[in-house]
Order: sequence, then structure tokens, then C-alpha cells
Amino acid sequence: MGAFRLALVNPNTDPADTDEMAVIVRAAFAGDVNLELQALTATTGSSAIETASEEVVAAAETIEMIRRTGDADAYLIGCFNDPGIDAARELTEAPIVGIGEAAYRAILFVARRFAVITTLPRGVPDLEEHMERLGVRNRCVGVWATGVPVSDQGAAFPGTTEAIIAAGRRAVEERGAEGLVLACGGMSDVETTVTQRVGVPATNGVVIGALFAHSLWRAGLRTSAAGSLAPLEENASTC
Amino acid sequence: MGAFRLALVNPNTDPADTDEMAVIVRAAFAGDVNLELQALTATTGSSAIETASEEVVAAAETIEMIRRTGDADAYLIGCFNDPGIDAARELTEAPIVGIGEAAYRAILFVARRFAVITTLPRGVPDLEEHMERLGVRNRCVGVWATGVPVSDQGAAFPGTTEAIIAAGRRAVEERGAEGLVLACGGMSDVETTVTQRVGVPATNGVVIGALFAHSLWRAGLRTSAAGSLAPLEENASTC
Amino acid sequence: MGAFRLALVNPNTDPADTDEMAVIVRAAFAGDVNLELQALTATTGSSAIETASEEVVAAAETIEMIRRTGDADAYLIGCFNDPGIDAARELTEAPIVGIGEAAYRAILFVARRFAVITTLPRGVPDLEEHMERLGVRNRCVGVWATGVPVSDQGAAFPGTTEAIIAAGRRAVEERGAEGLVLACGGMSDVETTVTQRVGVPATNGVVIGALFAHSLWRAGLRTSAAGSLAPLEENASTC
Amino acid sequence: MGAFRLALVNPNTDPADTDEMAVIVRAAFAGDVNLELQALTATTGSSAIETASEEVVAAAETIEMIRRTGDADAYLIGCFNDPGIDAARELTEAPIVGIGEAAYRAILFVARRFAVITTLPRGVPDLEEHMERLGVRNRCVGVWATGVPVSDQGAAFPGTTEAIIAAGRRAVEERGAEGLVLACGGMSDVETTVTQRVGVPATNGVVIGALFAHSLWRAGLRTSAAGSLAPLEENASTC
Amino acid sequence: MGAFRLALVNPNTDPADTDEMAVIVRAAFAGDVNLELQALTATTGSSAIETASEEVVAAAETIEMIRRTGDADAYLIGCFNDPGIDAARELTEAPIVGIGEAAYRAILFVARRFAVITTLPRGVPDLEEHMERLGVRNRCVGVWATGVPVSDQGAAFPGTTEAIIAAGRRAVEERGAEGLVLACGGMSDVETTVTQRVGVPATNGVVIGALFAHSLWRAGLRTSAAGSLAPLEENASTC
Amino acid sequence: MGAFRLALVNPNTDPADTDEMAVIVRAAFAGDVNLELQALTATTGSSAIETASEEVVAAAETIEMIRRTGDADAYLIGCFNDPGIDAARELTEAPIVGIGEAAYRAILFVARRFAVITTLPRGVPDLEEHMERLGVRNRCVGVWATGVPVSDQGAAFPGTTEAIIAAGRRAVEERGAEGLVLACGGMSDVETTVTQRVGVPATNGVVIGALFAHSLWRAGLRTSAAGSLAPLEENASTC
Repeated sequence: MGAFRLALVNPNTDPADTDEMAVIVRAAFAGDVNLELQALTATTGSSAIETASEEVVAAAETIEMIRRTGDADAYLIGCFNDPGIDAARELTEAPIVGIGEAAYRAILFVARRFAVITTLPRGVPDLEEHMERLGVRNRCVGVWATGVPVSDQGAAFPGTTEAIIAAGRRAVEERGAEGLVLACGGMSDVETTVTQRVGVPATNGVVIGALFAHSLWRAGLRTSAAGSLAPLEENASTC
Repeated sequence: MGAFRLALVNPNTDPADTDEMAVIVRAAFAGDVNLELQALTATTGSSAIETASEEVVAAAETIEMIRRTGDADAYLIGCFNDPGIDAARELTEAPIVGIGEAAYRAILFVARRFAVITTLPRGVPDLEEHMERLGVRNRCVGVWATGVPVSDQGAAFPGTTEAIIAAGRRAVEERGAEGLVLACGGMSDVETTVTQRVGVPATNGVVIGALFAHSLWRAGLRTSAAGSLAPLEENASTC
Repeated sequence: MGAFRLALVNPNTDPADTDEMAVIVRAAFAGDVNLELQALTATTGSSAIETASEEVVAAAETIEMIRRTGDADAYLIGCFNDPGIDAARELTEAPIVGIGEAAYRAILFVARRFAVITTLPRGVPDLEEHMERLGVRNRCVGVWATGVPVSDQGAAFPGTTEAIIAAGRRAVEERGAEGLVLACGGMSDVETTVTQRVGVPATNGVVIGALFAHSLWRAGLRTSAAGSLAPLEENASTC
Repeated sequence: MGAFRLALVNPNTDPADTDEMAVIVRAAFAGDVNLELQALTATTGSSAIETASEEVVAAAETIEMIRRTGDADAYLIGCFNDPGIDAARELTEAPIVGIGEAAYRAILFVARRFAVITTLPRGVPDLEEHMERLGVRNRCVGVWATGVPVSDQGAAFPGTTEAIIAAGRRAVEERGAEGLVLACGGMSDVETTVTQRVGVPATNGVVIGALFAHSLWRAGLRTSAAGSLAPLEENASTC
Repeated sequence: MGAFRLALVNPNTDPADTDEMAVIVRAAFAGDVNLELQALTATTGSSAIETASEEVVAAAETIEMIRRTGDADAYLIGCFNDPGIDAARELTEAPIVGIGEAAYRAILFVARRFAVITTLPRGVPDLEEHMERLGVRNRCVGVWATGVPVSDQGAAFPGTTEAIIAAGRRAVEERGAEGLVLACGGMSDVETTVTQRVGVPATNGVVIGALFAHSLWRAGLRTSAAGSLAPLEENASTC
Repeated sequence: MGAFRLALVNPNTDPADTDEMAVIVRAAFAGDVNLELQALTATTGSSAIETASEEVVAAAETIEMIRRTGDADAYLIGCFNDPGIDAARELTEAPIVGIGEAAYRAILFVARRFAVITTLPRGVPDLEEHMERLGVRNRCVGVWATGVPVSDQGAAFPGTTEAIIAAGRRAVEERGAEGLVLACGGMSDVETTVTQRVGVPATNGVVIGALFAHSLWRAGLRTSAAGSLAPLEENASTC
């Protein structure tokens, strides 16, 4: 097969986060797929998206990045709340995957009940409404916030990983969680550790989201151009 | 009583729309309340918000406008999909009302079933998801799109008004609508005509939203600063 | 503006409750609106509505009071479960507001998650079903019953206020409540104290309900006379 | 077995309706059960309950009738919207069945999708909210209103029966209804005819409700006296 | 009346369970109804259905048993998850009742909130999805698993009964349960004990399911043969 | 990378169907992945699964096939209603994908509203309940049944394809469908034709399900062994 041109769109402004996700995405395809990865970092906004205000800015920046990158085969939006995803789908017929929706849909292939582990408590209402939009809230046994900010996530912060593992174990033991959703893009490099230590599948959507994006592209599924997703030039009244 | 300082935030870039809404808001308080109205128009974005992409840009612009206007007693966001409203509530303790949520909550005080009349069909999924978030979708008997763009709404376009009336009558006769939600900021000056001609209450949220904003302020209800609405400076990890 | 003729309908038989609510309603309009308040007290039924049986009697008495008071501009039903409200809307085109629905709709303008604080535990299922009808149950983080009966509510019972504050604090700390709904008409004079002491907005719907009723009237929104709300004389089969 | 003492409570004031239902109930037990039927007719209210106002009055009258009849083994409330049923359950430990809830629960034992056939269109919102409370709305393919008032229901009005059959056939053919709920107490004597002519099971809850009431009694299931159904004398604050 | 020919279908392979349920069913009709009971035991599968795999096998065996028993007046499926019930309804016009659906529908006639008490924790997701399908999950205050396997249920295991009672009391005291659903066929002979000791109605559906089956048959309600329940010979493509 | 050992499990007994799906699955991986495909056909049951009874038998046969094939890297269940899928997940830690759930989850990555096109009308309730379990029913604008049986599906029956296209066009034009779910395993070879002719993405889940299965495996996501998915030998009471 020819190359798979994936654009990884990081809605925050921290290029280290982009790099971290890019490494993981590359590893996910190594050996199978000829990946041409384009990794984009937001130029305005926050280096860590933790509030609704930051997410609003991130959404605008995300669609700008996609607009400027018109020829990818697929896009992966690397922020758990999938900022701007409906809007992004108006801009291209390439399939677009958000890591949040990828994580929720993936976990339900391997578990009937899941728990969400997140960073700050203030994000919980956004997570719950995200789950409602995706139709998965009644499969969630609870959301655990570790209180550790986005900036201190990832394998470089072993204490954070321990906090995630502790929360995951409580979710399994006290509420019957059968899988874990790690609700932060920065948790992608601890998926394996959490899975092994807690003993149930864990995902944050970066790896599986990239793979799902490839699957959609390979299956010939392109973003619809009908209804709410019709190309924008059809709007005569916009000026 | 002292003055009520209301900021009307128009998320689109058309100052004529802002003026039209400002006239209507002023009339709603005339004689009762000493209104000090500050009317703001977006400086970037679309002159008519009809797509999810335009709404994303509008949301970012909306919170920017609110950030720059720190001392109002209350805010009214003058676009039916309430762009950026959760984010806006992080920025101030003044109550914030979106015309969409105002319209849905108001109509249910005077009708048990309502229909939505909107502009372009492409907006229907956004409207339905908005109703789901507000918990009112099961009270909606249907959404009618006239196919008339945002730019051609308002009393200056009598043909549009006739199309709204025709849709409203069908909603009443065929589906049992008891009230109408006019899902576009530009429809605020036809509420009375539609109400009279169709014979059921109609609202688009500009008038009632402004009045509700005053009511919240008068009742001493301030936007919460707890949980997801905690002030942003509490986010140590943001940089 | 001319006078606003509001009828405050107290579904219980205790005139002291009516007086207490009337004082608060008057204060809510002082200085802005020329209020002509008509305060009505049920003549049969219970002095404190705490059971479904008492609510059934209260509903019948409520519509009787509204029937006898045909010329108000708006009505406020002063019992948290909004007894008889759908029926009341068949009787008049003046807008009718229940304090329960007003409280739930108001709190969601200023908070994304709320807790309910009520009197006796036996009322919890009624509260939950009320929230389901209004479409707001998934925004409620829990219901706390203090165990204090209706008769011992209000600023005259400081111990009750402390119990409400304690419950409110637990709701904020343990479940992330961002606002409080005080589910009893008798709690209207402690709203401010609870708001200040707990630090999140609190409402029981009397103040905001009266203000919303005025807003609806001012906006020209009248109760629908279509569908289920058609005038009763259309029922040929009634005798 | 000893006698089964059933109280049939007709919430409307028409003794002819009571008699009609009583005949049908007696037939349902003939040969099996030693039925002692006490048939009660409302003394105030409407002779045909078609509006929310009439239902409010009927609810109050229903609980009065049950209060006065303290020694039945079970109660059947003979009006489709089950007026006052939660309140009634506070009054006695005898099981109480409403014909509406009986009809909905029964039809789902014999059909996966049902249609509702009712009298006047104005009753549709009440029916829909009733189905939501019972958790069955997503199994309903639609509500058909014949436009024939309550007073003209029953086998004595063959034209009405034809209208019901026509509506039922459309529901089966156009929407896949597998069963019919006849949403009026006055339709109890046309169940068999409708079932045979349309070819799918039809019920209005009078027959099956009486039988279910006996089943509950026979199984030893008594109305709970816990939580919201605790006996009323526990309310110290009532006077 | 003539005899009522009921087929009790036990989806597990333990004839002792069948006998136990048969004794209870006979007692439920003694004196009233001339019962002709046919009690069937699965010949393949598990002696105790505790996993989804066992339930799949049980469903296939259940419809085989019903197919072989073509002339009953009604069927009772004696396993709480109602294995194969939709399929069973394709096979006969006799009414079919599952003990699970019977228990959930019955408890809601006598309680507004119920708790579920079950055997092993692994069955909880199945129970929750069962409640969702029946539309009753929002009336359930929680599921308590005693950890005691199916094989050790029933009056012969007094320790199990004590565990059920302890769980039931916690559900009443801590969560406001007003009734109990005992989610295992093997609990049918402890219903009375649990009801008396906990003080709220308890049911596992065997007794009430058999009585409801009789009620449906007596009311003339037959399983629909329309839509998804059309007789199988209509499927031309089956071979 | 090493080989990906996928087991394609066809729950019906028609080896031609298995072959057809196998061809399509092989093509989906050609060039990228070293696929070792094991294609299994049911040995008992129906050659076309169109009824609930046939699905029950298919579920039992499906788990038998999986039990006998213990060493695959992943499983794809090739029948749209995903028979036995929860049970299958108890049997292995390899990820298991059903074509139905794959189709619903995939379409929502590329469309906000979808329509379902199916074979016989009798299957509609099963489809609707499947969508409810997956949490996607509120994104579905309707189900169209062509009336063409399973046996006459696929590219070999051009008239069937035309019927699917006609239904798809109606769904897009009349109800705003943005994507199509083709609810039958036999439709896998017409996905491309339907997509091109109707102009919106269409999927039946065979291609995308196989690719998703590979993605899950590649991402290291294994079926949970916790909670309801714990290995069966833990059930001490089974014999």
C-alpha cells in the first residue's frame, strides 16, 4: 500500500506534548503501515487545556490547523475533550478522529463498564457531558480526578502514574470497573503500565485513535459532506 | 434602584444585528429599569453564524469580548446556539444568559410542547444536541428549517416572516406544538407578529433572555465560582 | 409602566407562610416595578405539604384559587412541587410560574451541577420525578434531606439553617455541587444566608419565580391556548 | 380461598361508567375467584375526565374515596391517567392498581411495540408524560387520537369502535405496532372487538388491572410503608 | 372455569430447582384455579446460570423446551434474566412471562423505589442492562450482590437468607429502597421471610409471574403475531 | 510485524456467506498486514438469521465456535445483531468485535446523523434495542426495511442494491441522514456502490470491524477479565 498521511493536531501549544504523542503514534504503525506523520502544535492558546475557556480557544485553533493542512488522509485531534471536532468535520472529507471519542468507543469493545481517570476535579462536568453526547454515560461507573494537573502527566512523573493506578484499583474494586479511560492526552505513555498494574485494559485514545483513523481511511469511509457537514461554500450568506 | 448594567454580546460581526437586538432589549426594560446597555459586536468571525466552524470562532470571540468587559452586572449572548457559554461562566460572577437557553426555558413556562423554527437545514443536528444538553428534547415536537439564511431574517424580510408563520402553523396543526422557539437571533423583531398570526407564544430569547438576566441579577444569583466554574487563576498548570 | 398584578398562590393553609413569601416577593420588585400583589392562602388542605396526599389536595385547591382570581397578569404557585401547574395553565392566558420549576431553571443559568436540599426523606422520590419531568435530573449531584419538617423551616429556626448549610457544604465538597436548590417554599428567607455561608448560589424559587413571572409578562409571553392547554369550554363532553 | 374484596374506584361522577366497568370486572373473575366487589363513583368532579384540571379534581376525589373505604384487599383506579395513584399508596397497605399502568405493563408482556389510541388530541402530552414516568415511551410507536370524546366511548357507540379499529390498523401497518393500548376507561367493553378486528392484542387496563390487583394480593405483595409511602401519621408537622 | 395449563420452563438443568419452583407455583393457585402445571427442566447447559455464556446456552434451551411444548395456555420462564424471551414470543400465541420482568413490573405496583439483591457481583452489568431494556433503571436505588452463588440460594441455606436480609436493610436505610427485587429464581421460597424481616415487599418473580401469566390468559391477552413476533414460517429465506 | 491471526465467525450456516465476508476481509488488509484468517461457519442453526429465535441459536453456536478456536489474536462476529457478544467476551482475552457495533461506532466518526437500512421489517425492534444498548439511537434518523430477505442480499442481486440506494436517498433527502448503516452481513460487498450512488458514507461493519479488531489488538487492548468478564472457571457453583 502507499503511504498513510496522518495529521496529528495538538490543540495545546506545548511542542513537547506533540512530540510525545508523535512518538507513540509512530510506534503504533511501525512495521505495518508506511506512515507519513505531520505533527502540528497550536500557536495560540494554552500549553495545557484544563478549563472550558482554554478549550474554546483550542477548538478555534484546531480548526485553523486543519484548514491549513488540507491534504492529509486522516486527522487525529490530540486533546481528550475533542475540541472543535464537529466543526473540523465540515472542513475536509478525510476522516477525523478525536482521542476522547476513540477512547470511549474502544474501551466498550473490551469492557462492559469503565471508569474515567482524569486530572483536575473541575473538568468532571465537561467529561460527563462529553459521555452523554457520545451515548456512553450509563456504562461509566464513575470519574476519578487525581488532582494532578495536565503539566505533570506522563511517564516522566512516576507519582502521577501511581495516583492513576490507585484510582483505577479503587474503581475496579469498589464500583466494578472493567476498563479504564485515561482522560488526558498526556497519559498516553502510561497506558501499558496502568493496564499491567491495575489488570484491566486502559486507554487514553492516542494510540487507538490513530489506528482507528487508519482503519476508517483504509475502509474507504470518508467524512460525510451531507446535512450539517456540507462544505462551507454552500453558505451563501457568509461573508 | 440603581442602574442595571447589561452587556449584550453579539458573537457575529454584523453591527446592524447588534443594533437591532439592542433596540429590542432597550424596549423590554423601558419604564421599569434604568438600563445601561453596552452592546458589543465581534471583530473577527462571520457576519452570520450558520456552521459549526463559524460557531467555534464565535465562541472564542465571545469569551474575548466578555473578558474585555469586566464590570457588567449581567451578560446576554446574542446567538441562538449560546457559543462559549460554559467558558464564559468561568470568567465572571455576573450572571450570563444565552438567548438559546433562555428561549427553551421560557417557552416551557407557557407551553408543554414546542416546535423549533430555524434557518438552514444544516443547523438541525446542532439544535437537537443543544436541546439534549438542556434536557428539553422530549418536549420538542420537531424542527422546521425554512431554508432562508440568517442574513435574510427579521422584519425587513416579510417573505421570511411568512415562511416562519407557515412552518409554525404546520407545527401546531400537524404535531400539536403549543409554542414556538425561533432559533435565530435575527428573528427577535418578528416574535410578536409570529405569536399573533400563528396564535401560540413564540420567542427567540433576546427579549426574554435580557429580562431573565435582570431577574437573576435582581435575585442576587451570581454565577458559581465552584467546581468547573472556579476562577481560572486557580489553574497552576496553565502558562 | 402600569402596575404588574401578580397573584401569589400559597397551596398550603398557613397564612403566615403566605405573608412570609409576600414580604420577599415585594422586596424583589421594590424600586423597579409597580407591584400589585394579591396573596392567596388555601382554605382547605394541609398547613405544610409533605406527602403526596397533601399535594393532591393542594393541587385541587390551587386551581380553585386561580379560577377565583381571574384577572391577574401572572401567577406564582408557592409550593416547591408545583402542585396542579399543568392544570392551572388550562385556566388562564396569564403566565404561571411554579417555584420549583423556577428554581431548577434559574440555578442552571449560574451553575452546571446542583444539589437539592429538602426537608423530610419521604419527599425524595417526588423530587426526583419532578426533576425528570423538567429534564434536569442528570445535572443534579444528589438530594440531601435534613429531616427537619416544613413547619420548622425559615430564618426563625436557626438550627434548620445550620443543617441546610452543613448539607450544602457536603454537597459542594463531596459531590462537586456548584449551586443549591432549596426545595421548600419556607426556605425563601434563608437563600442569602445559605449562599453566603456555603459560597455557592442558592435558590428556592420564590424570589426568582416572581421575577421570572414578571419577565414573561413583560416579554409578552402568554400561556398557550393550543393543544393540551386549550380553554376548557371546548370540551363538549364535560357536564 | 376466601373472598377477594376489591374496591373499584371510578374517579369520574358517572355511575353508568362505574356500572359498566363493574360488569367487566365481575366477568373477569367469574368461576375462579369469590369476588366481593365494591364499586365507588366520585361525588364531585367531572363525568368525563378529559383535561388536566379535571384530573386534578379527580385525584383529590380518588384519595377521598380510598380513605373512606379502608378495608378492601385491593383497589383498582378506573381512569386511564391513574389520578392520585402515588398519594393513594400512602393510605393503605392493600395493593393499588391504576388501569393505565396496568395496560402499559400488560401489553409489554405480549408485544414489543405498541400504539396508544385515545380520545381527544389535547390529552396527548399527558399520555406521553405518563409513559415517560412508567419508562415505556421508547416502546410506543405513536399516539392516535380519534377526536371522539370520552362520553361517546364504549360498545354502545359503534362508530367510535370503527374509528379505533381504523386507527389501530394504521398503527400496525404504518408504524409496526404489535399491540394496542386503549387509553380510556370507557373503552373496556371493546377490547375484544378491537383485538379481533385489528388482529393484535388490545387492552385498556380495566380487566387486566383487576386481575393484576388480585395477583398482587394473592402473592402477598402489599404496598410498601417505607420511604415516600410511610403512613401519614408519621408527619408530625401536619395539622 | 376449565383448567389453566401452565408450562414452567426452568432454563437450568437442576430438577431440584424446577421442583422447588413448581411447589411454589402450585401454592399460588391453590383453591382458586384448576392448575395443570407442566414443569420442564433444561437438558443441556448449566445447573446454575451465572454467566453470560451460560445464559446464551440457556436461551437456546428455553426456546427448544417451548417449541416442544406447543399446547400450554401460558409459559413462565424461571430464570431471572429472562433468557430467550423475545425469541420465545415468536413461537406461540400463549402469553409468556419471565420471572425477571414480572418481578420488576410487580414491585413498581407497590413501591416507588426498589433495590435489587443478587448473587455474584459479575452479574451486575447484565441486571443493569435488563432494567434499562424494561425502562425501570431510574427507579432502582442500587444493586447489592451478596457474593453467595446460585447453588446456595433458598430457604435451605439460612445464612444466605441472613445475607439477603442484611443487604435489604442497608438498601432501605441508606438509599431509601421501598421494595426489594430478589434477582435469582432460587430465592422464591424466601420472599415471605425477607418481606417480614426487612419490612418492605420483596419478590423474585416466580409467584407473581405465574399469577400474572394466568391474569394475561384470563384477560384474553395473547402474544402478538404482528411485526417482530410474526410466526416464523413467514420467513421464506430460512432453510 | 508478525502475522495477525483473525478468526471470522459466521453465526449462520451458509459457507457462501462466510466466503464472501472472508474475501472482503482479506482485501481490507492486503498490502499492510500479514493476515492469517480463519473463517468459521456455524454448523447448526439457520442459513439466514432473520428472527429472534434464529439469533438465539446463532448466539449459542457463536460462543461454541469461539470456544473451539482458542488461539486467535482477535475475533470478528459476522452477523449484524452481534449474537452472543457479551458471552463471547467471557471466553478469551483476545478482542472481539461484532459487525453491528463496529458499524454504529464507525459511522459516528464520519457522520452526525445516520439511517439504518435493513432487510425485513420484523427485525426493526431488535435493531432499535441494539442501538439503545450501544447508546446511539438518538443519532439515528430512522430505519428503512427494504423487505428483501437476507438470502437475496449482496452484489449478486442488483435489484436489492437498487432498493438499498432508493431507501438511502430517501433517508438523506427526507430525514437528513449523513451516513448509512447497512444492517446485514450480506451487504458487505455493496458498501462502495451504495456510498458512491447515494453520496454519503455507508458501512455494514465487516470491513471496518475487521480493521478495528486489528487496531485493538495492535494497541494492546485485550478483553477485560474483570467484573462480568471474569474467566468462567471462577464460578465455583457451575457444574
